[in-house]
Order: sequence, then structure tokens, then C-alpha cells
Amino acid sequence: MTPLPTWHCSVTVAAGGRNVDNDAASADRRIRTSFARQGLMRTLGATLGKVTSGQVEIVLVPKPEVSQQHGFVHAGAVSAIADSAAGYAALSMMPMDRGVLTTEFKINLLAPAMGERIVARGRVVKAGRTLTLAQTEVFAENEGKEQLIALLTATLMAIEGREGIAD
Amino acid sequence: MTPLPTWHCSVTVAAGGRNVDNDAASADRRIRTSFARQGLMRTLGATLGKVTSGQVEIVLVPKPEVSQQHGFVHAGAVSAIADSAAGYAALSMMPMDRGVLTTEFKINLLAPAMGERIVARGRVVKAGRTLTLAQTEVFAENEGKEQLIALLTATLMAIEGREGIAD
Amino acid sequence: MTPLPTWHCSVTVAAGGRNVDNDAASADRRIRTSFARQGLMRTLGATLGKVTSGQVEIVLVPKPEVSQQHGFVHAGAVSAIADSAAGYAALSMMPMDRGVLTTEFKINLLAPAMGERIVARGRVVKAGRTLTLAQTEVFAENEGKEQLIALLTATLMAIEGREGIAD
Amino acid sequence: MTPLPTWHCSVTVAAGGRNVDNDAASADRRIRTSFARQGLMRTLGATLGKVTSGQVEIVLVPKPEVSQQHGFVHAGAVSAIADSAAGYAALSMMPMDRGVLTTEFKINLLAPAMGERIVARGRVVKAGRTLTLAQTEVFAENEGKEQLIALLTATLMAIEGREGIAD
Repeated sequence: MTPLPTWHCSVTVAAGGRNVDNDAASADRRIRTSFARQGLMRTLGATLGKVTSGQVEIVLVPKPEVSQQHGFVHAGAVSAIADSAAGYAALSMMPMDRGVLTTEFKINLLAPAMGERIVARGRVVKAGRTLTLAQTEVFAENEGKEQLIALLTATLMAIEGREGIAD
Repeated sequence: MTPLPTWHCSVTVAAGGRNVDNDAASADRRIRTSFARQGLMRTLGATLGKVTSGQVEIVLVPKPEVSQQHGFVHAGAVSAIADSAAGYAALSMMPMDRGVLTTEFKINLLAPAMGERIVARGRVVKAGRTLTLAQTEVFAENEGKEQLIALLTATLMAIEGREGIAD
Repeated sequence: MTPLPTWHCSVTVAAGGRNVDNDAASADRRIRTSFARQGLMRTLGATLGKVTSGQVEIVLVPKPEVSQQHGFVHAGAVSAIADSAAGYAALSMMPMDRGVLTTEFKINLLAPAMGERIVARGRVVKAGRTLTLAQTEVFAENEGKEQLIALLTATLMAIEGREGIAD
Repeated sequence: MTPLPTWHCSVTVAAGGRNVDNDAASADRRIRTSFARQGLMRTLGATLGKVTSGQVEIVLVPKPEVSQQHGFVHAGAVSAIADSAAGYAALSMMPMDRGVLTTEFKINLLAPAMGERIVARGRVVKAGRTLTLAQTEVFAENEGKEQLIALLTATLMAIEGREGIAD
């Protein structure tokens, strides 16, 4: 096994339509308020990490309650925090009168999810008027090291003036 | 809005390598034993429905504990039961000394997940020696009617002789 | 290797908004006219097969011009006909003033694409006002037998009144 | 519309099993030899750009021969170069006795593909013994500017000692 280099990529976020670069404080407040309403996140024991406009972090501590049959964190739990991180990254750039719904996502699972903490980092790749593409990298943290264990891409749809769909 | 027809498709399951058409009783027993070890399914309150070789059903009753911020069932919870249904459909066709791990899935979310019950029906599309493709249709049941709310395709990898990875 | 059963699934197509069950003759005419404008299909040598409202078939004959490095049909060529079949299945159910664009697709490649003919059969899974989900099964035909070699799911976006985007 | 920041991400490439960091010159030679055998790339008029170990660039000039019905580059042609770029990024890190086959990919199409050149840049996200995950960003170049128009993630399977499957 050969040591391998670290690649760097940069993705330019291009906003379409009315998407906005909300200031960090208001984005943070908005996302925390909505996150507190996600019953599933509470049930899983997931917590919100760092939030900025276009980027959201969600943390999950492995435990038997979120496991699959081999004791690893269930792909469904990994997907749940990765999807929420992508969705909230998108929501953080929406005008205040619009919500978002996930229309599809794909996740590649690269290694069994285990360790001290599972950290999902979502970011907006392209913000459009109707559809936003976001991507989440999921890392397992162990003894101060991070390993990439999953990669998700999600399409989020902006919802406006539909009853029951707000932040 | 025009009433539209019902399409019928048929997918031939082709087995590669050592995959087997396990008899229904042993497939059922095997999957129930493994399902009981998935802490996440218990945490979500999901239950196993009908199991046959190559097809597995998982049921989730909507409740605040599995919700997203608008009160619908969280896409992550829908994905979790859909992924498990796909994985167990694959496992039901594996020789007894092999387990499976999800390597990737994609889910399209077609309508908000709400109703009396959410039912995920997974089936094997193609069983291969290393990789198996499975597909899960997720329905919302309400007043005796079913609506397709999500469609997932997943790749499962057969795992043999790897410590800690069995059924 | 054990002979395995054939599964049958049925997917109800539910129309949202203004989607229509165009009559077979007009759907056929509309799709053939548009298909003739797809330069790529002509370049690949792909031809249109059976067309009905919500279902479209595209055929490709393997040849060196569409191959990858091992001589099989390139995944990109398989994807191209599978995507077109999905897109035209969606278009066949659109009102006459609306076009469609693919916003995303995923394809699972199950076996090397080779044989006498590669046949992509797209059908609408759910027709919505803004987004339509379609699925394409791709088969390799050889000596009178069909083998499923790829499965694609695609999201198509309805486009209305946007210059340059019609059928 | 607000000007938006550029995000930076870094993905650590972790090699499993026998994957290697082939030197740039031999990776370049290997990929060029194989690319010359892909009949589809020649048919599309695609050319190989910069090649390093783990990263491969493919370029396509828009023209009627690769168009869809509105005159944009067909999603299938965009997918073809994006898939080849991902596959060759994976191959560039394989030992010399192993080839790769794409087992699945998903592509999100963010904007109509048009401009002077379409450039697909594939890179390995995680190289594993059996499966490698690669990601391709596709840009449209116009008047010296690049716009991200598509994002693909692909799973490549290492193939060893299988007749007809080499580079």
C-alpha cells in the first residue's frame, strides 16, 4: 500500500434566481430552529455542528440504537444525517419565504461507519431557482483522524407558498 | 387531470455464481433473525412484513419521532427502511456463509411521506457473484389505497469470510 | 446455479397537474419528429422502436463506433439511449406546449453490453407538474433471448415557455 | 442575484489493496493507449486532455453530431465523456494487470451543455481493492470562463484475469 496524495477541488457556487447569501448569524438561527423540529434527528441523537451560508455540519455518535446487524451505523442513519446536511445547506441560501424538499439523493458508502463520531458536511454545489444541488461528505472520526466513509449528492426543490412547507 | 393506465413490467432475476433460491421458510427465518439485530429498525419502530426469497417488505408507521421539520416522515427514515428492504431481499438469496453490505443507493422521493403506514417492498433485480442490484418501491397507505412515494435502487456487495460480517 | 423465477411488478402512473394521456398516434408522431432532431442518436446509429403514451423504445446495434476499450458498447452509449428513452417517455405525456430536460439520472450496469441489438425501454413511473420520474430497462438481445444489462432512473423537468426548448 | 463565494473541498484519496500511485508518465501513456481504443470517443470527437495519476481530463467540442433536440450537447454525450474521465482516473491508479468496468454512475445536469468546449475532469475519491469511487466535474468553457454544468459520481470495479478485459 502506497501513501497517496490529497487532492484539492474547488467548486464555484453559482446562484440562480432569488437565492441569497444569507449572513452567517441569521443562517445559523434559521437552521437551528428548523433542525429542532426534525423528530428523526432527535430520535437518532444527531446534533447540529457548524453552520454557515451554504454549508452545514451534522454529527452522530455511533451506538446500538442506530446500528445495522453487524454493529456498524446503519446506512439509513448515515443517509439521514447526510441528507439533512445537504438539505440545510440548501435552505441556508434560500430567501426566508421558501422551504426545501429533497427530490432525490444518491449515496456511495465507502467504508463501514464506525468510530467515535460520524460527521456529515453538506455544501451547496449549485443553487438554482427551482432546483439546488448539494453534496455531503461523511467522515468517521477516530483518535483525531478523519476517514471519508460516504459521499452523497442530493437535489433539493424550492417550495414556496405551499401550506405546511416552510423552513 | 386525466386518469392514467397502470403499466406492468417484468424483471427476470438472473443468478450468477453461487446465489441460491433459498426456500421461503429458511429465507424468512434468516431475515427475521438478522432484522432483530438492526438497532436502527427498532429505534424507528419499523417492522418486517412479508419475506420470500428475493423479496422483503418493511413497514413504518408515521409518528413525530421519525419526522422532518414539516411533519412528514424524514427522507432518511424512508431511505432506511427502503435500504434495509433492498439489502434483505439480496441477503435472502445468498448462500448461508455470505453477508451483504450496501455499497450505494439512489432514492427518488415522489411525494411527501405521510399516511397510516409506509410500506417498503424490496426485490432483487439481478443477483451476481460479487454485486447484487435490488430495487425498492415505497408506498404510503391511506384509507385502503396505496400511493408510490419513493423508488430506490441499491447495489449490495457480497461479503464472505470477513470477521464481523455475517447475516 | 439455480434457475430463478421471474418477478412481476406493477407501477401505477399517477399524473399531476396538466399531464395528459396523449393518444398513441399523436404521441408517436411527436416523439419521431423530435428524435429525428437528436444529432447524437443519428451519430450513434440508434433508432426509435415502439412508442406509446408513457413508453418509448430505442434500439442500438453494437459496432466498433460505439465501443469502449474492450469492444463492448460504451456505458456512455448505453446511457445515451437509456436517457433518451426515459426523456421521450416523459415527453409523450406532456401537453404540446411543454418540453422536457433531464436533470439527473443514475444507471446501474449489470453486464457487458454486447449482442445483436441493445434495446432500451423507457416508461414513466410518476408524471408530476414540474418533475417526472422515468425508468429505463436496457436489454441485450442475442439469438432470440433478452438479458437485462442496465437499469436507469431519470428525473425530467418540464420546461414551458423557455426559448429554444420545445419538443 | 448576489455574488457567491467559491468553496474549497479536499478529498483524501486512500488506497486499499494493491492500488498504486503510478508515475505520471506511465499513467499518461497507459490511458492514451486505452483511450485510442474507445471507438465511441472517436465517434463523438472527444479528445484526451491532461492525465495524472488519479486525475483525467476529456474534452468535447459541441456540434450538431452530439446534440439533443434543442441543439445542446446531449446528456448522453456529456455522460459518456464524464464516465470515461472517471473510469480512466480509476484505471490510472490500478496495477498494470488490472482493468476497470463501470458498475454504476449518477449524473446531475445543472445547466444546458453549450459553449466552445465541454471539459470533463475526473478524479479518484477512494481507491479500493474491488471498488473505486470517482467523481467527474463537467464544465462548459465560454470566452475564457468555466461554468459547472454537470457532476457525476461513478463506481468502478477492478477486473483481473478476465479474458478480454485489460486496460
